[in-house]
Amino acid sequence: MTKTNPGRFFEDYAIGQTIRHAVPRTVAEGERALYHALYPARHAIYSSDEFAIACGLDGSPMDDLLGFHTVFGKTVPDVSLNAVANLGYAQGRWLLPVWPGDTLRAESRVIGLRQNSNGQSGVVWVRTRGLNQVGDVVLDYVRWVMVRKRDAASPAPEPVVPDLPAVVDPADLVVPEGLNFTGYDFDLAGETHRWGDYAVGEVIDHVDAVTIEEAEHMLATRLWQNTAKVHFDATHRRDGRRLIYGGHVISMARALSFNGLANAQMIVALNAGAHANPCFAGDTVRAWSEVLDKAPTDAPGIGAIRLRLVATKGCGPAAGLRDSDGRYLPEILLDLDYWALMPL
Amino acid sequence: MTKTNPGRFFEDYAIGQTIRHAVPRTVAEGERALYHALYPARHAIYSSDEFAIACGLDGSPMDDLLGFHTVFGKTVPDVSLNAVANLGYAQGRWLLPVWPGDTLRAESRVIGLRQNSNGQSGVVWVRTRGLNQVGDVVLDYVRWVMVRKRDAASPAPEPVVPDLPAVVDPADLVVPEGLNFTGYDFDLAGETHRWGDYAVGEVIDHVDAVTIEEAEHMLATRLWQNTAKVHFDATHRRDGRRLIYGGHVISMARALSFNGLANAQMIVALNAGAHANPCFAGDTVRAWSEVLDKAPTDAPGIGAIRLRLVATKGCGPAAGLRDSDGRYLPEILLDLDYWALMPL
Amino acid sequence: MTKTNPGRFFEDYAIGQTIRHAVPRTVAEGERALYHALYPARHAIYSSDEFAIACGLDGSPMDDLLGFHTVFGKTVPDVSLNAVANLGYAQGRWLLPVWPGDTLRAESRVIGLRQNSNGQSGVVWVRTRGLNQVGDVVLDYVRWVMVRKRDAASPAPEPVVPDLPAVVDPADLVVPEGLNFTGYDFDLAGETHRWGDYAVGEVIDHVDAVTIEEAEHMLATRLWQNTAKVHFDATHRRDGRRLIYGGHVISMARALSFNGLANAQMIVALNAGAHANPCFAGDTVRAWSEVLDKAPTDAPGIGAIRLRLVATKGCGPAAGLRDSDGRYLPEILLDLDYWALMPL
Repeated sequence: MTKTNPGRFFEDYAIGQTIRHAVPRTVAEGERALYHALYPARHAIYSSDEFAIACGLDGSPMDDLLGFHTVFGKTVPDVSLNAVANLGYAQGRWLLPVWPGDTLRAESRVIGLRQNSNGQSGVVWVRTRGLNQVGDVVLDYVRWVMVRKRDAASPAPEPVVPDLPAVVDPADLVVPEGLNFTGYDFDLAGETHRWGDYAVGEVIDHVDAVTIEEAEHMLATRLWQNTAKVHFDATHRRDGRRLIYGGHVISMARALSFNGLANAQMIVALNAGAHANPCFAGDTVRAWSEVLDKAPTDAPGIGAIRLRLVATKGCGPAAGLRDSDGRYLPEILLDLDYWALMPL
Repeated sequence: MTKTNPGRFFEDYAIGQTIRHAVPRTVAEGERALYHALYPARHAIYSSDEFAIACGLDGSPMDDLLGFHTVFGKTVPDVSLNAVANLGYAQGRWLLPVWPGDTLRAESRVIGLRQNSNGQSGVVWVRTRGLNQVGDVVLDYVRWVMVRKRDAASPAPEPVVPDLPAVVDPADLVVPEGLNFTGYDFDLAGETHRWGDYAVGEVIDHVDAVTIEEAEHMLATRLWQNTAKVHFDATHRRDGRRLIYGGHVISMARALSFNGLANAQMIVALNAGAHANPCFAGDTVRAWSEVLDKAPTDAPGIGAIRLRLVATKGCGPAAGLRDSDGRYLPEILLDLDYWALMPL
Repeated sequence: MTKTNPGRFFEDYAIGQTIRHAVPRTVAEGERALYHALYPARHAIYSSDEFAIACGLDGSPMDDLLGFHTVFGKTVPDVSLNAVANLGYAQGRWLLPVWPGDTLRAESRVIGLRQNSNGQSGVVWVRTRGLNQVGDVVLDYVRWVMVRKRDAASPAPEPVVPDLPAVVDPADLVVPEGLNFTGYDFDLAGETHRWGDYAVGEVIDHVDAVTIEEAEHMLATRLWQNTAKVHFDATHRRDGRRLIYGGHVISMARALSFNGLANAQMIVALNAGAHANPCFAGDTVRAWSEVLDKAPTDAPGIGAIRLRLVATKGCGPAAGLRDSDGRYLPEILLDLDYWALMPL
């Protein structure tokens, strides 16, 4: 029994510790197709080699979130097996496209620790890097989770809380090498709205909706080799429900956002994110976005747009996000803040 | 809110108008594998590179219906988002195989318009072409749909109803270049029945059946980037049921038809098709075929066979197709008329 | 109606008969990705090209069980369409890796026949070989099934019962050419336990569990082109339940066994196997393993480990396997005996 992975407890983390996560994964055409079967993804750069080539790339890269999920999945056995809650994300950046045939692995460094006042658990901050087969970093982000202690009596570590900017500075966004939107084909991309057409504060209701099935979220979560029991084992929770991996909701909402944001082609930064309420099979997921900011880039024809992406089970943007006490409304599933690249 | 696609209404179509549909799609090994996971497809040319090479091709092409669904899916946001009904197909021809790595896009030309007498809607005929990355047409078909008017008071256009032959003339069938069935391996193909063994009027009950799941039809429909809400959103219809994309039933029935028609290797024309009744998850789909016609081809060892493919939820061929008033029986899901290629 | 495959009955088999099974199948990146979406598979050699290359291979081969299921699926229309029960496996050996792009076909030779005393059915033993596109045998195993007679009155054949060793002799195990575990990266593989750390008699509870969905087992079973009605047609059994393909349980249990046996990288032999009880959607599958034997190999840094892999719907290893009458407990789904390769 001792040969199985019990997961790390709060006591097992130390500032500066680097964890080399197991099982590298080669991603290719099969993962791409599954991504498109699992989510209504239609952003043209990730759908068509020809479109991507016309935008200056060598071909269609793997979906931005596919890279994220693969890297995230590697961290689960080491970071969140005993996690009580996934508390937040910050400073996420996509640094290099992932190409079909690339092999991804992940490493995390512990950058923050703070025991909770109840002595039962603590918060762990890690900076995770996804690396490809030549050792280049493709993705880098900070995540923090609440982790149970093995023994409430064990001493609390010196608290270290990293100072994390709320937003990735647009000057730090990395545009994929060669990307050029000066000859962008708006017809083929699916919408005519360009960077200049979006106003800060503008809200877009993405209209479409998808009712979630058990088989689908499990296929997705396994594809990312995310092993958290709670997603697969209907006997694990007292209510017999399988909790859907938060990343499934992220990808579903992002794909739904095509309708109104078809030209927000590539995610390049994750500023923040909250899984506001759990999602279960049978929920019908909707999405709306708010334009939070805009910034130019040095790349030809390309602007950056900062978007809040909200997934809900039912309500639209008119309902808002939070109640009068500042708590997320029960119908809010996801509140994500990211930067994407868009044609000028 | 105005940035999302409201779909076209009847007034938005004009004779001669050409619509360049959005989001080109590269299809490859992943889409092929998913096709085989979603449908019990076993026609050997689409299953084995070696078998296809022995038949004179360069390798196994993508499944004929995979090409059709991909092209069809592209047209949905422009043609059928506000459609009340998918009325028919005609003059469909497969002109070139789709190979793994090909990128497909689609264009439709409006060839017919007729307002309904109620003034609320009209019929739109489009000729859709699927093109690959070098601009060659891989597929060409006519479809007509009933589309809502935006405003019942808007004037009716001059009616134009295209003259569509009921059947593709066998002289117009295109056999893939190089295809040669003179050395056809009937053992590996799975059945011994050749073109000469089928008689016009012969009916084949395909025996097998598949009970449909929500997760599967949604995976399929997303894979073709078909975005019609009604397939995904359980809150969309009053009865809480998700309508299954008609093409899912076509592929399911075609795959079931292997048992008795294993050598009807490649679909080369779609003469007509009716989605007789809606299909929902939980339905158990069966299929039977009737040989409608046979024709020789100029290609070595290859005959053409015209087949009616009927999908039902329960009944077999003995029940027939229609009631005494000429209406499809409630258990009939699909009545499809196509030409396929078979070894002599 | 006579054109469909009625399947073979007991009378249709004769000792020495060789059946060339239909529909060769090319397997590639898509099948690999689906395998990883369907099962929580994480053994590093099948997950990462880089890891496999570091172990001396040319890249990541297709999962060992993916090859098995593909070959097995080919045999179903000829061997088990009228089978009453799948009785056992013996002498299974993986002889060559299956690489992405390989085309697999299968042949079976009848090596045993014995009519049952009731005269209604008989047992058929076949030795099945899976071959790749150049005709090399990639997999070889014996399976026996109970098959219905077409006519109870037909005479019984001379009984021939093959002499099948209970275990593949470790001297007969084939290690893939070039495989070398001397530089094995235990961090990336996910566990530190090496061959020397496992003791004969040791039992490992794999802790994780997966609740099975209809859509998933049907996707898997179709992917292997296994056509047995009972897996797909909810109207086939009187209880309206679809029987899950036994191989789905094998792959699920093997994948779950990663947690505790992450370094049992490659299956090289199947000694025996029993599908102890049927599995249905809604069952939550767990797994435990018992170390049955260990043997050295001539290959660098590689030992062989013989494992019993047990899948259950609920109970752990403490419950045991059988009741006092020697019958499998009702919660036992699978009792599989195999050899795997592990770093020393």
